[in-house]
Amino acid sequence: MDPLHDLTVGDLLREHRRNLPDRLAVAGDGRRLTFPELDARVNRLAHALRDRGLAPGQRLAWLAQNSFRYLEALLAAAKLGASFCPLNWRQSPDELGFALADAAPALVLWQEEEIGGAVRRARERSAAGVPWVQLDGEGPGAYEALLAAAATGDFELAVDPEAPLLHMYTAGFGGRPSGALLSHRAILAQSLVLAHVCQVSCEDVYLSAGPLFHMGNFMFLMAYFLYGAGNVLVRRNDAHEICRAIEAERCTAAYLVGPQLQQIAEANQGGRYDLSSLRASRGSPEWMKMVSPGESPWLRDPGGYGQTETMGMVTYSALGGAHLGAHGRPSPLLQVRIVDEEGRELPPGEVGEIAVRGPTVMNGYFARPEENALRQRGGWHHTKDLGRREADGSISFVGPKLRMLKSAAENIYPVEVERCLESHPAVAECAVIGVPDPTWVQSVKAIVRLAPGRSASAAELIEHCRARIASYKKPRSVEFVDALPRRGFAIDYDALDARFGGGGYPGGSTRST
Amino acid sequence: MDPLHDLTVGDLLREHRRNLPDRLAVAGDGRRLTFPELDARVNRLAHALRDRGLAPGQRLAWLAQNSFRYLEALLAAAKLGASFCPLNWRQSPDELGFALADAAPALVLWQEEEIGGAVRRARERSAAGVPWVQLDGEGPGAYEALLAAAATGDFELAVDPEAPLLHMYTAGFGGRPSGALLSHRAILAQSLVLAHVCQVSCEDVYLSAGPLFHMGNFMFLMAYFLYGAGNVLVRRNDAHEICRAIEAERCTAAYLVGPQLQQIAEANQGGRYDLSSLRASRGSPEWMKMVSPGESPWLRDPGGYGQTETMGMVTYSALGGAHLGAHGRPSPLLQVRIVDEEGRELPPGEVGEIAVRGPTVMNGYFARPEENALRQRGGWHHTKDLGRREADGSISFVGPKLRMLKSAAENIYPVEVERCLESHPAVAECAVIGVPDPTWVQSVKAIVRLAPGRSASAAELIEHCRARIASYKKPRSVEFVDALPRRGFAIDYDALDARFGGGGYPGGSTRST
Repeated sequence: MDPLHDLTVGDLLREHRRNLPDRLAVAGDGRRLTFPELDARVNRLAHALRDRGLAPGQRLAWLAQNSFRYLEALLAAAKLGASFCPLNWRQSPDELGFALADAAPALVLWQEEEIGGAVRRARERSAAGVPWVQLDGEGPGAYEALLAAAATGDFELAVDPEAPLLHMYTAGFGGRPSGALLSHRAILAQSLVLAHVCQVSCEDVYLSAGPLFHMGNFMFLMAYFLYGAGNVLVRRNDAHEICRAIEAERCTAAYLVGPQLQQIAEANQGGRYDLSSLRASRGSPEWMKMVSPGESPWLRDPGGYGQTETMGMVTYSALGGAHLGAHGRPSPLLQVRIVDEEGRELPPGEVGEIAVRGPTVMNGYFARPEENALRQRGGWHHTKDLGRREADGSISFVGPKLRMLKSAAENIYPVEVERCLESHPAVAECAVIGVPDPTWVQSVKAIVRLAPGRSASAAELIEHCRARIASYKKPRSVEFVDALPRRGFAIDYDALDARFGGGGYPGGSTRST
Repeated sequence: MDPLHDLTVGDLLREHRRNLPDRLAVAGDGRRLTFPELDARVNRLAHALRDRGLAPGQRLAWLAQNSFRYLEALLAAAKLGASFCPLNWRQSPDELGFALADAAPALVLWQEEEIGGAVRRARERSAAGVPWVQLDGEGPGAYEALLAAAATGDFELAVDPEAPLLHMYTAGFGGRPSGALLSHRAILAQSLVLAHVCQVSCEDVYLSAGPLFHMGNFMFLMAYFLYGAGNVLVRRNDAHEICRAIEAERCTAAYLVGPQLQQIAEANQGGRYDLSSLRASRGSPEWMKMVSPGESPWLRDPGGYGQTETMGMVTYSALGGAHLGAHGRPSPLLQVRIVDEEGRELPPGEVGEIAVRGPTVMNGYFARPEENALRQRGGWHHTKDLGRREADGSISFVGPKLRMLKSAAENIYPVEVERCLESHPAVAECAVIGVPDPTWVQSVKAIVRLAPGRSASAAELIEHCRARIASYKKPRSVEFVDALPRRGFAIDYDALDARFGGGGYPGGSTRST
């Protein structure tokens, strides 16, 4: 560690307290705190958590909806050198129990209201030997009582900015979720770029309505916090609650997606709420009547490609001016390469795995040494996502690198062939599998559902692909079906393999599970 | 080093080459290079410099005016792990000779045109045993010939982002200039914040007209480079050259100060040049007719307080909304404390030394171990500047901490008393010294030049101070003079001490020289 140059997320709060003593830091649950008030509570919380056994390097689990206490707990973990692990309470009790057992937190913060049943079932499935502190409890062991009894004064402890602060679960590879470990450094670095793209200032008030166990919401919270903006957290996605919060705190920015926008517009029929503090440069006419013109990015997903493992965005649609790529240009803090299976950089126009490195990359997955070694081989983080560098240098994300086919010496990613087929007007949806081929190892087979009232022959679809992607990638056979088999929302490739004779995949997922 | 997370200034160029293959990277001297062209030349230069003896950790000196080659040399040093040392060719040959001897560069890049005489005189005064490469020469040993003969391909070498890249001389403490060492990390960190304040995008084209041996110009160059904007360098401050460059490259932003603005407006009388690509949100009516409305910060110094040792800005006027402090609020990447002589934080309203820490702070001065230990005591960089935290958390820079008086146990900084006296309408300028006092150690004496046609008594001026600053800081005696003695532009305090009996200073500069 290097006290002269290090900066941690806890230090941000120490400075906001001094730099912005009168400003709103956080609001929610009917409470509002200035930065000095927030810092005072965070110090008490850090003392209390340490007294209850949370030590540097350990995990603090969060099993609750959005609350101003989310920011308190995150910042207390930051000052303690612990990591903060917000868990998805919408998961099944088994899934939650798995995450709890996997993260092995030294302390759990939990909420009774609305989600107490699910929380208790998960608790039964995990080791219960550590303290569970109720956020919305009244008793002597509950959160507010701990704070009231705790020591005051800055919790001063040297914390390594390269140590993990966020422990966030992400989709499983090999069938189970893994906890991506994001350091103070990664959080600060991404926040600087995201705040630039969103033109954040300390005069903004940002509304978090989406669940903060997802990176897409967490990264905005931190970008606004970095520059000393106010943060308003509504417990969950309820249109009236959102409207009341915007009106009460004069929120200037929010990240709201399609259905939320519609629900809010409905809740606000007749102009019941004053939403004019929100600023927008574009939106539906209905929305533009409710809000004020401005450059703030509410409604505006910054666009781009990213993943939890990279603290969110890798590329930004808003960076780099006009571009050919569907997902903009890379963050200036990342090196990005499109690589083949051997890690060699591919030329523009070719599809390969997106590999990145730089300060926003995770430290690794918690307790997955083999997966980490594989994913970080050669000093690059392998995203397991496919992308293409366009001729103008911009990036298109193609799809997840789930499985790979091999035709002779050539690697073929089904998702690339699927995107090409789906650009044919007669194709509603499709899936591409590999079927064993005595000469070519595998050959490409497409299973296609046609759009209602449209028709296309197998030969026509094969020709469509031949004209657009490398010839060896085109399907050699096409099957037409009325529906593709699914598991949840995802296409069930195993069922397709079983039905159409696919299998024997040589690359991709089989190497990394 | 940590290949998965490290990022260096050389890496930025590696990425711009891929991300922005068609864009202008740099223009000047009638040349213009895209990012791939710049990267190719930088690689050749890095190979050539290494072959001529420049090794990682060594210094590359730049003794020339602005040129696109400045950026090439900086980036070659970055890829080599060397530091780039731009020297002030306007100094006297003795001063330049001192800097050359102090930096002990392994290689010097120099320019004949206009400044060859000064360069040669400095060379005579320094060790001549290292290669001197002429930038504007034609011969086989000159810059372009070296490049033409050099190896191609990326100069791939792992470089520590915490190693110094910039070696920039700054005003002397103890009578001689010192080379502040700024790391890759410090340059990247400051560039992120400055680019945010200036709303830089890769569609900007930034004009550098001021000398790049000064931090105030260098920091902008890097902020624009970080986000892939084009950089245009004009050789020196010539209004017609500046106008031609703006017109030719459609520059959108520049950092121009008072006299330059007037010279440009004169050069452009009758609308001889098209300066409409420049964007400005405000300016004189004359200027607003020549340029386009927009949010770009040309003409607009971001404002604030900073120094070379902190890679430029510590506080930004543009950060933190409305504020009481004259110099805005701190960068989110710095911790800032106003401290007393013992390093204890002072409450808002009191004047003390500005101490900072964070990733934008220099590594230290080159070859000044004792000064470094003193300046970095307790893990804080002591700026030797005085400031005050205002009630709203913002910062006012008060002045340099040159010398300190002591009245009984109280520390008094003359600059604070001078600012107070100068706020009296009858005072044109003044200086405050300490005169020995048998009871109080020292007592405060003010030497005042009155404004033409104004009068004020000593008692009136003393009362003016008593009402505005702590009583012990007010002058106990006032002398009126027709002129203050000066050395160059600076008031000659030694002459004042000699004339008015000052001296015996107990604090400040005597401790750190």
